Amino acid sequence: MNNFQFHNPTRIVFGEGSADRIGELASSYGKTVLLVYGGGSIKSTGLYERTIKQLKESGITFYELPGIEPNPRLSTVNKGIDICREHGVDFILAVGGGSVIDASKAIAAGALYDGDVWDFFVGKASIQQALPIGTVLTLAATGSEMNGSTVISHWEEKLKRGAGSAHLYPRFSILDPSLTYSVPRNHTVYGSVDIMSHVFEQYFSLTTNTPLQERFCESILQTVIENVEPALANPNDAAARANLMWCGTMALNGGQISLGMQNDWASHGIEHEVSAIYDIPHGAGLAIIFPNWMRYVYKQRPDRFAQYATRVWGIDPAGKSEDELALAGIQATRDFFTRIGAESKLADFGIGDDQLDRMAEEAVRYGAIGSFKRLEKDDVREILRMSL
Amino acid sequence: MNNFQFHNPTRIVFGEGSADRIGELASSYGKTVLLVYGGGSIKSTGLYERTIKQLKESGITFYELPGIEPNPRLSTVNKGIDICREHGVDFILAVGGGSVIDASKAIAAGALYDGDVWDFFVGKASIQQALPIGTVLTLAATGSEMNGSTVISHWEEKLKRGAGSAHLYPRFSILDPSLTYSVPRNHTVYGSVDIMSHVFEQYFSLTTNTPLQERFCESILQTVIENVEPALANPNDAAARANLMWCGTMALNGGQISLGMQNDWASHGIEHEVSAIYDIPHGAGLAIIFPNWMRYVYKQRPDRFAQYATRVWGIDPAGKSEDELALAGIQATRDFFTRIGAESKLADFGIGDDQLDRMAEEAVRYGAIGSFKRLEKDDVREILRMSL
Repeated sequence: MNNFQFHNPTRIVFGEGSADRIGELASSYGKTVLLVYGGGSIKSTGLYERTIKQLKESGITFYELPGIEPNPRLSTVNKGIDICREHGVDFILAVGGGSVIDASKAIAAGALYDGDVWDFFVGKASIQQALPIGTVLTLAATGSEMNGSTVISHWEEKLKRGAGSAHLYPRFSILDPSLTYSVPRNHTVYGSVDIMSHVFEQYFSLTTNTPLQERFCESILQTVIENVEPALANPNDAAARANLMWCGTMALNGGQISLGMQNDWASHGIEHEVSAIYDIPHGAGLAIIFPNWMRYVYKQRPDRFAQYATRVWGIDPAGKSEDELALAGIQATRDFFTRIGAESKLADFGIGDDQLDRMAEEAVRYGAIGSFKRLEKDDVREILRMSL
Repeated sequence: MNNFQFHNPTRIVFGEGSADRIGELASSYGKTVLLVYGGGSIKSTGLYERTIKQLKESGITFYELPGIEPNPRLSTVNKGIDICREHGVDFILAVGGGSVIDASKAIAAGALYDGDVWDFFVGKASIQQALPIGTVLTLAATGSEMNGSTVISHWEEKLKRGAGSAHLYPRFSILDPSLTYSVPRNHTVYGSVDIMSHVFEQYFSLTTNTPLQERFCESILQTVIENVEPALANPNDAAARANLMWCGTMALNGGQISLGMQNDWASHGIEHEVSAIYDIPHGAGLAIIFPNWMRYVYKQRPDRFAQYATRVWGIDPAGKSEDELALAGIQATRDFFTRIGAESKLADFGIGDDQLDRMAEEAVRYGAIGSFKRLEKDDVREILRMSL
């Protein structure tokens, strides 16, 4: 176990009906609010009306930034920053999934920065302050509701980059599982893949002596695996939706499940290059890339992959070598993703091999990626090739 | 899963060498500090010198309250409150185990309260504010380093009572596992029993649909079980000490592992009555009482106890009824506590049956206790009788 620091000040308000506390919570932080949301699903579900009614009743002046993209774009973030500056916004309320929350974080940082917000995403500046934000989560996936990270895309340059800061932790996050009943089937799938992928990035680590952390990771993986199919079979399954939502938050709340472990994040880096160019859903990209990353790297530490196979997938180790177990666990992962309806290859999105070089090049733009196995450009290209 | 709220603002600084950051962290919160510690072990280990050197170098004025008892007493807490008021203390630094931290929390609340601090422990008042505190943990046990609870004893009245408040969460806690290398063997044992008991209080719950929470609980139990004997065999085992320390914190950090689950806490209530009268170590009392509580209540939910037996103790369910499995898991618990050297009956402390009535009466002073099975006075007396 490595030394670590941990500090997660986000207040979680979890449970059916918690979305009735939006006004009360928002008004304790701000008087002039920017309401950020996505493609309009919150209007069809009634959450939009429910939100603005509460904001009005709480005496809050609010402005709106609708239309956050699934891969949120810098240009949209800049629109939000302009609104904040023009109207003296003092609090940002994100109502949506990880994209909306990530965009809100970028706006929060950019609004108080005397420069181009993109600076934070390319290492030109670090975030020193941000407007406070709160979230109302509508999709179990990214964990952005309880961490200080954000990922946005520079669409014109086909770049997708992340930034993080202690200043970006939401002040509160409302986690009402009933808001996810209406999530389309494929987003339930992609969100679940995303949750599992966040755990993978932490669990497949070279750090030794982390038994509690490994078990926390395995706990989330097992619970997601148990609950995805019930949620798909019955979208209003309150138990499954609640479990997926809490798994999503715990999977990436400032790295709490893996404190003291070196994380990897190469697969996310590779996926970002794919969706930066092709704009495919993040979870879909991860479902394609992760099993191939696993196959490419498992020999770094077959014991961890064997443990994964037995503990998470319940694969009987009897008569199997460590490598065989490891590969069986990887195959179980691939099979599960396929069974729940996630894509298995880039070709499923019509993606061919013409941009492999560019994506590999961009992935290692700042140097080799990953820590479980350091990946150079050729490694990334090979993983992408395996994913075709 | 029930609805819940969660907010844990404590900053954790974990790892060997983190005790060199006492001055830096303390000085970011206070200029006039009350240094609280226990029976002098921090002097023999050099931690005392190491602490005051840093306080001095950070320009901090500090006063000292040594001599916190293993079951910290109200009279000692009041001494601390007097020092705070007299010298305008603005920050409390607890250097020690759970007792020292609990006493510090009580002092922190009492110093800003215009009345008797005991009011908070008997329900006469609730904590509205408290001085900020920081901790340097020297024993893996209570979790007090990352929660808002405190338990102190009114020695003259033979009462041991708890209080809690969001204001009592430490601002920071330094968790340096190397500080626990010198912990006496029996306190390593009792601390580990305490950690496991905290999990039991959360895990044996009537709440349904909490698969992630149950697995988090099981993760801690398994990890403690794996690491106690290595730590006893080699007190300087860095890996075992680090794992026990992190288990202790995660086991009771504002209930994070069991959010949305109804907790029980009857066994703690019963143990408090024993140690209030006989002043035995808290962990020792829990090791005696908990297996008997389990035997008394398991029929409320044999499925949870059967799950405990199979998942935590690896007991093969083949050919066993649910009740048999449950009882096997309880016996495994008892056997483990005995194997690591914890007492198994009150008689081991020379405690007879003459105060059973009084203890049972006091335990239900405010009504029946526990939620897994509501325990009336007769139930408590029976569990105590089984523990003789």
